[in-house]
Amino acid sequence: MKKGRELADRVVVSIFVNPIQFGPSEDLAAYPRDEARDLEMADKTGVDAVFIPDATQMYPDGFQTTIALNALPGHLCGLSRPGHFDGVATVVAKLLGIVWPNMAIFGEKDYQQLLVVRQMVKDLDLDVDIVGAPIVREADGLAMSSRNMYLADDQRKAACSLYRVLTESKKRVKAGETRADTIIASAEALIQAYPETRIDYIAVCDPSTLDAVTAIDGPVLMALAVKVGRARLIDNMLLTP
Amino acid sequence: MKKGRELADRVVVSIFVNPIQFGPSEDLAAYPRDEARDLEMADKTGVDAVFIPDATQMYPDGFQTTIALNALPGHLCGLSRPGHFDGVATVVAKLLGIVWPNMAIFGEKDYQQLLVVRQMVKDLDLDVDIVGAPIVREADGLAMSSRNMYLADDQRKAACSLYRVLTESKKRVKAGETRADTIIASAEALIQAYPETRIDYIAVCDPSTLDAVTAIDGPVLMALAVKVGRARLIDNMLLTP
Repeated sequence: MKKGRELADRVVVSIFVNPIQFGPSEDLAAYPRDEARDLEMADKTGVDAVFIPDATQMYPDGFQTTIALNALPGHLCGLSRPGHFDGVATVVAKLLGIVWPNMAIFGEKDYQQLLVVRQMVKDLDLDVDIVGAPIVREADGLAMSSRNMYLADDQRKAACSLYRVLTESKKRVKAGETRADTIIASAEALIQAYPETRIDYIAVCDPSTLDAVTAIDGPVLMALAVKVGRARLIDNMLLTP
Repeated sequence: MKKGRELADRVVVSIFVNPIQFGPSEDLAAYPRDEARDLEMADKTGVDAVFIPDATQMYPDGFQTTIALNALPGHLCGLSRPGHFDGVATVVAKLLGIVWPNMAIFGEKDYQQLLVVRQMVKDLDLDVDIVGAPIVREADGLAMSSRNMYLADDQRKAACSLYRVLTESKKRVKAGETRADTIIASAEALIQAYPETRIDYIAVCDPSTLDAVTAIDGPVLMALAVKVGRARLIDNMLLTP
């Protein structure tokens, strides 16, 4: 919201937990919602409108259209969340159609989502700039996410290992480490030291295509998804030699 | 084009044989193109712009987005042309994104296409009116189509049986016939009397959902697809009791 106020004359915020981007075994029903707090934050930041549709407005009877991408979702979160990015692309196209903004802002924590939305907008010739907003972190480094509310105190410590892994990896690449497998193995060890964690993936990849990188000779994206208790957490960082 | 001039202040025409709506065994390469004649007609009608992209502009390297509908394509032409309406929905979304019109006109000969485009526009909240233009027929009743150029003289006679079937069925329904199967059986007999024909489908269906109708107690769509030589021809008509 702050970034929108910096960049635009008018700011519209959407608040919508989008059912079609959740898989059948995922946490749609439990997903943390706090509309009152969201509205208070919107009010304090000073946005012009908040759009809070309900699911039957977005997906009325007879709704039958899906936007699917065939390459970007074949990486990272797309592998463990089949259909997720179709749901993301479809709802974002709808939100863009409804609001018709000049630009739209997406957080870089969901880096793959940002790429998917950018590609969809390019492929469908939508006249909107997609702007990434840097990850916002808590004091302990944990990337802000609605799902952080799931974390008990001891899980919170485990969750912080994601950020520690990323900053550590960044240092090592800066210091000359060029092997992705070495970086990934160290990251695994550090995270698995916390028994509450279950790694979904740890990847070092091309920041544009998300294809895996083996030898680091330019900027790469390190991205990871780790379950801590019931919270599936993601985080990422650009590593530069 | 004429309808556009009637309805709008500015008219943009697109001329594009869209590769992604052709199946691998279909007639993409042979599909009749006559840009000079198209441009002459556009010029005579007095349109404001003609958009003639080539396929690499519409689908550059890395293009990966498809818009798919899950109900309407499960009928009529969608059954013998898998993926066809995904290609239609995708290219139309792109054309709408590029031209950003207030309205877009689609011929009613491709009735299912018109429904697919309307549904896609509704589902994705695109702010454009989709307008149907009535079928334009040759003097002998044959619905105008680029593919009519495929027809040799004797095939042309066979091709006219589609229109005869539709007008005959319309009369019979008006006169009180309520059984769709009776209508369809007569239509089959009439068309199969021409040995050059191969029926793809003859359907009597709900004009909104395209679901098959058995007892005609309101307006129904009669639609058919018939191969005559190498030309796959379609036609349709609303039948009203």
